[in-house]
Amino acid sequence: MTAKTAPIAIIMGSTSDWPTMEHAANILDDLQVAYEAKVISAHRTPDRLYDFATGAAKAGHKVIIAGAGGAAHLPGMAASMTPLPVLGVPVESKALSGMDSLLSIAQMPGGVPVGTLAIGKSGAKNAALLAAAILALSDEALAKQLNDWRSKQTESVAHDPKG
Amino acid sequence: MTAKTAPIAIIMGSTSDWPTMEHAANILDDLQVAYEAKVISAHRTPDRLYDFATGAAKAGHKVIIAGAGGAAHLPGMAASMTPLPVLGVPVESKALSGMDSLLSIAQMPGGVPVGTLAIGKSGAKNAALLAAAILALSDEALAKQLNDWRSKQTESVAHDPKG
Amino acid sequence: MTAKTAPIAIIMGSTSDWPTMEHAANILDDLQVAYEAKVISAHRTPDRLYDFATGAAKAGHKVIIAGAGGAAHLPGMAASMTPLPVLGVPVESKALSGMDSLLSIAQMPGGVPVGTLAIGKSGAKNAALLAAAILALSDEALAKQLNDWRSKQTESVAHDPKG
Amino acid sequence: MTAKTAPIAIIMGSTSDWPTMEHAANILDDLQVAYEAKVISAHRTPDRLYDFATGAAKAGHKVIIAGAGGAAHLPGMAASMTPLPVLGVPVESKALSGMDSLLSIAQMPGGVPVGTLAIGKSGAKNAALLAAAILALSDEALAKQLNDWRSKQTESVAHDPKG
Amino acid sequence: MTAKTAPIAIIMGSTSDWPTMEHAANILDDLQVAYEAKVISAHRTPDRLYDFATGAAKAGHKVIIAGAGGAAHLPGMAASMTPLPVLGVPVESKALSGMDSLLSIAQMPGGVPVGTLAIGKSGAKNAALLAAAILALSDEALAKQLNDWRSKQTESVAHDPKG
Amino acid sequence: MTAKTAPIAIIMGSTSDWPTMEHAANILDDLQVAYEAKVISAHRTPDRLYDFATGAAKAGHKVIIAGAGGAAHLPGMAASMTPLPVLGVPVESKALSGMDSLLSIAQMPGGVPVGTLAIGKSGAKNAALLAAAILALSDEALAKQLNDWRSKQTESVAHDPKG
Amino acid sequence: MTAKTAPIAIIMGSTSDWPTMEHAANILDDLQVAYEAKVISAHRTPDRLYDFATGAAKAGHKVIIAGAGGAAHLPGMAASMTPLPVLGVPVESKALSGMDSLLSIAQMPGGVPVGTLAIGKSGAKNAALLAAAILALSDEALAKQLNDWRSKQTESVAHDPKG
Amino acid sequence: MTAKTAPIAIIMGSTSDWPTMEHAANILDDLQVAYEAKVISAHRTPDRLYDFATGAAKAGHKVIIAGAGGAAHLPGMAASMTPLPVLGVPVESKALSGMDSLLSIAQMPGGVPVGTLAIGKSGAKNAALLAAAILALSDEALAKQLNDWRSKQTESVAHDPKG
Repeated sequence: MTAKTAPIAIIMGSTSDWPTMEHAANILDDLQVAYEAKVISAHRTPDRLYDFATGAAKAGHKVIIAGAGGAAHLPGMAASMTPLPVLGVPVESKALSGMDSLLSIAQMPGGVPVGTLAIGKSGAKNAALLAAAILALSDEALAKQLNDWRSKQTESVAHDPKG
Repeated sequence: MTAKTAPIAIIMGSTSDWPTMEHAANILDDLQVAYEAKVISAHRTPDRLYDFATGAAKAGHKVIIAGAGGAAHLPGMAASMTPLPVLGVPVESKALSGMDSLLSIAQMPGGVPVGTLAIGKSGAKNAALLAAAILALSDEALAKQLNDWRSKQTESVAHDPKG
Repeated sequence: MTAKTAPIAIIMGSTSDWPTMEHAANILDDLQVAYEAKVISAHRTPDRLYDFATGAAKAGHKVIIAGAGGAAHLPGMAASMTPLPVLGVPVESKALSGMDSLLSIAQMPGGVPVGTLAIGKSGAKNAALLAAAILALSDEALAKQLNDWRSKQTESVAHDPKG
Repeated sequence: MTAKTAPIAIIMGSTSDWPTMEHAANILDDLQVAYEAKVISAHRTPDRLYDFATGAAKAGHKVIIAGAGGAAHLPGMAASMTPLPVLGVPVESKALSGMDSLLSIAQMPGGVPVGTLAIGKSGAKNAALLAAAILALSDEALAKQLNDWRSKQTESVAHDPKG
Repeated sequence: MTAKTAPIAIIMGSTSDWPTMEHAANILDDLQVAYEAKVISAHRTPDRLYDFATGAAKAGHKVIIAGAGGAAHLPGMAASMTPLPVLGVPVESKALSGMDSLLSIAQMPGGVPVGTLAIGKSGAKNAALLAAAILALSDEALAKQLNDWRSKQTESVAHDPKG
Repeated sequence: MTAKTAPIAIIMGSTSDWPTMEHAANILDDLQVAYEAKVISAHRTPDRLYDFATGAAKAGHKVIIAGAGGAAHLPGMAASMTPLPVLGVPVESKALSGMDSLLSIAQMPGGVPVGTLAIGKSGAKNAALLAAAILALSDEALAKQLNDWRSKQTESVAHDPKG
Repeated sequence: MTAKTAPIAIIMGSTSDWPTMEHAANILDDLQVAYEAKVISAHRTPDRLYDFATGAAKAGHKVIIAGAGGAAHLPGMAASMTPLPVLGVPVESKALSGMDSLLSIAQMPGGVPVGTLAIGKSGAKNAALLAAAILALSDEALAKQLNDWRSKQTESVAHDPKG
Repeated sequence: MTAKTAPIAIIMGSTSDWPTMEHAANILDDLQVAYEAKVISAHRTPDRLYDFATGAAKAGHKVIIAGAGGAAHLPGMAASMTPLPVLGVPVESKALSGMDSLLSIAQMPGGVPVGTLAIGKSGAKNAALLAAAILALSDEALAKQLNDWRSKQTESVAHDPKG
């Protein structure tokens, strides 16, 4: 679900990050939370990043989900230019399997926080869930939505490992 | 600043985590955000964790900051039992310098998110800043407070490296 | 072989862990030791974990084998709520190949032990063998069974590497 | 407490491992479980290891706790020559902080299990607790002892992080 | 030696990086190459970074040396906004000893290069030497200067390890 | 584009490095910068390395790009025998995915610099871009060429992650 | 080439190590150095290891090449029971790609050496070359053989990376 | 003990490696094996390395022990230019504790072997013992000497961990 002034922005460094980041989008679709998804490369489009990040709050976004791989600077640089909560998703990199992405996102210096999720698909999914939990603090309908989602998740866990 | 129904709960696995986690408390004091700080060991006091986490939302908390080291299960287990946003701080461990703490907190499976910050003091500080940014989404006074804090931080950065 | 009050419980965080954990089951089948295998997710079904772990000793189990991957909290949390010996199997994770699982299981704080085995299939197999060795301390028939198994293993090692 | 046919043997590769392994001994003293502690170097005294490991069951031991650092072969080699449960403690090494010890102990091939604990002091303590939990399966007095120890541990966890 | 339009700019994320980065400055002093040293925090002063990096070429700089630690985004972000060669120095970080800094600087995506040096003091020294070698391509006097420096270095290597 | 006295030499330890290093060659072709590409194995052809490195400056080269994998000694050894800037590309190795290559190239001692790029294809591409940026300092046509390349890169970044 | 009292013994922990270790055999075949290859599992056949290692010198072997993966104890345990030089080959392991094998073999305590080669095929090949170099110290014909092999290797290195 | 045509050469990259490498010298003194110890920096004195390595066999050396830290190229480059067995000692580095040294020495490509020992003092000691074991293959007096040394080592291992 995509809307004009979507509360959540999903940004990523490259179209090649979409197969990971679409898991965030899918969760938000499930929870009926509007989002905008766009490619913003910290390194190849620094002006686009600057414009987006400095304007994100005014544009009406509430939470930014940023995914990137390797020397993943997008989440941290977005966080340096917005007062909004920024959640970072380390995309699995080719050589180092996302360990470089994880450290580049999580090891931010004191003063500029990025809430970092797991490497890859799980992290993308969880970034959306955490963003929703943040919005749900002041949105009772969403809170109910999210609780239902979590209850269904709990119920869906099979008892028998053989499926 | 500690209050009855503080919006933020700072929990940690051991009193030995306090020298790290008090940096979160100090930031919240600076920002005049009320918090409760308590020791809850996932492993040594599982009932205390169960009671806290399942009751945290009703108790009036809005965001949980959880710090732990080594096989750091506290943030993830708290997240499994509350709809509230949980922020995890990997405390620096003796042998592996917090790499174990970081992986134990960040690598959560899809479905139960923990927003993970950096290892140690920087992470504790940033957990508080991120928690404040979350609360500030529906608290204009705090939003102003936080913007002031960030502006002061920016101004405080010396130009000359020799100090 | 599955029985009502099986001495061994094999628990795992997800049905996706079964291809690893069934190697534990196979060994127990070979040794004719009864076991129950079930999915218990520390994060998605915390109540199921709580009920299982606090009741495992009364239910007649003697040893718990717990397998999980990534931020693998299942073995440690089970260990926090039962007096029974808990053996942990780090399941190979996608991005970090089980290094995260290994550290999340092995690096428990002093006070709550988990006997950790190798990452993946070898670890699952060995968890079953170690569980059997524990039971064999007070079960002579099983001790003989296990010695036979080990003798056969020794004999089965070819001399010629070309097979 | 040291006795002739102690149920537990604590072995280690060098006298320099004692500052780590004595934490295992201290826990067993607390729980009034008899043990023998001796230095057996897999590399410098292979005959001593062979004699000990092949004779440990007959000598009346029930569980072996083995601590070693670096290319830590003692636990795995002991496990290869005894039907008894072997618990391994990775001693913190100088250059690699025990990561080498941990992998050398935990990554055993399928067929010969070592239940591995955490690196260093926590691991030594937990090896003793796990050994006691194993013995307690057929020793009600010890089971009570161990439950009391765990209850006291739970009670001793302060609520206030400031101590 | 500091000059108005110094060919080399040494930038770093914090005054705490100076004890590392001054080794770059010292080498440039030895080689009589002018430089400017300033603190520019990618995260705490993003505008300062933007202004500096977009203006560095026009300001007359030829090479940028950028040092940072942890989630070290300064070198990569500077490189994204200038056509000048950027050399990155991973400053040794507290918990992870600069492994996070190294990966955050070296693992840049294709399209925006940072020439990365070693972690810490050696890297700072070498960044200056590499910057000088770059300038020396079109500055014969500096080329001679640098060759002399290297010859002296070679001559200064003792033959006897005992000094 | 290959020329007699090409400003750039691309050397690599083995023909098996070509699938990585040809990405450097392709970029230089795009930018119309002449280069020579040759195999020089530090370990299997040390004389060839000695002859090349000691003669590279006289031969008219300006920048050396050196790619190697595993215990990658080629870039550092070339740097020890030439005053020219040396850029190192860690080729992805089979077992350790290039982490060994990266450390063997980046962790040079103070005194002999290698500007290290990312592991694999991205690093090869960036070595060419950095070499071009170095040459562009005294070649305005190339500077324009490079700026155009970067502008096209910026423009080519899609806005919509779905492509 | 296999002979009764072959100067070189190639031992390995499992038939599954043969695809790696046969590269050592192939080199020895090329150099016409006799060897015996056999499976000896430190963990599954400790008696076989004991008999082999304590008898290897008397049996006429001069150098032992030992390959193993994971918690690779074979090289170090062989070295503990023979005065002969032991060369260790870390076989690539499934989950950790041989990093566990490398540390388990290389990080031997002072007093019992194992000359460790690279992970996998390269290491196997090099173990054979190093063993041959050792024998060549007192075998001029082999020394010549080996020099020829190395010369051919040098000559075989193509100049053109495109093959 | 230092002699004109010593069978063993101990080379190292810097006088700062001597506190590690003197442990090799001490062992050789104990065993009465003559050696020469000298500083040869692969990077700062490449000609010295070239001259030494190409002439080492003719000079009468039999085995080369080479110690270096960080991007440790000395052992591998020496091995590339001599038919003699080369043993490498990874010296503990400041930031990465010798993990970089270990990988730079051990991960040699197939064709040019270096027998790698443990990081630091243990490795230096073991390099000397392995060199002696190599010489002892054709020197019965040394073989006896070495056996005595090993016997004394075995006898010196205390039984009681408390010393």
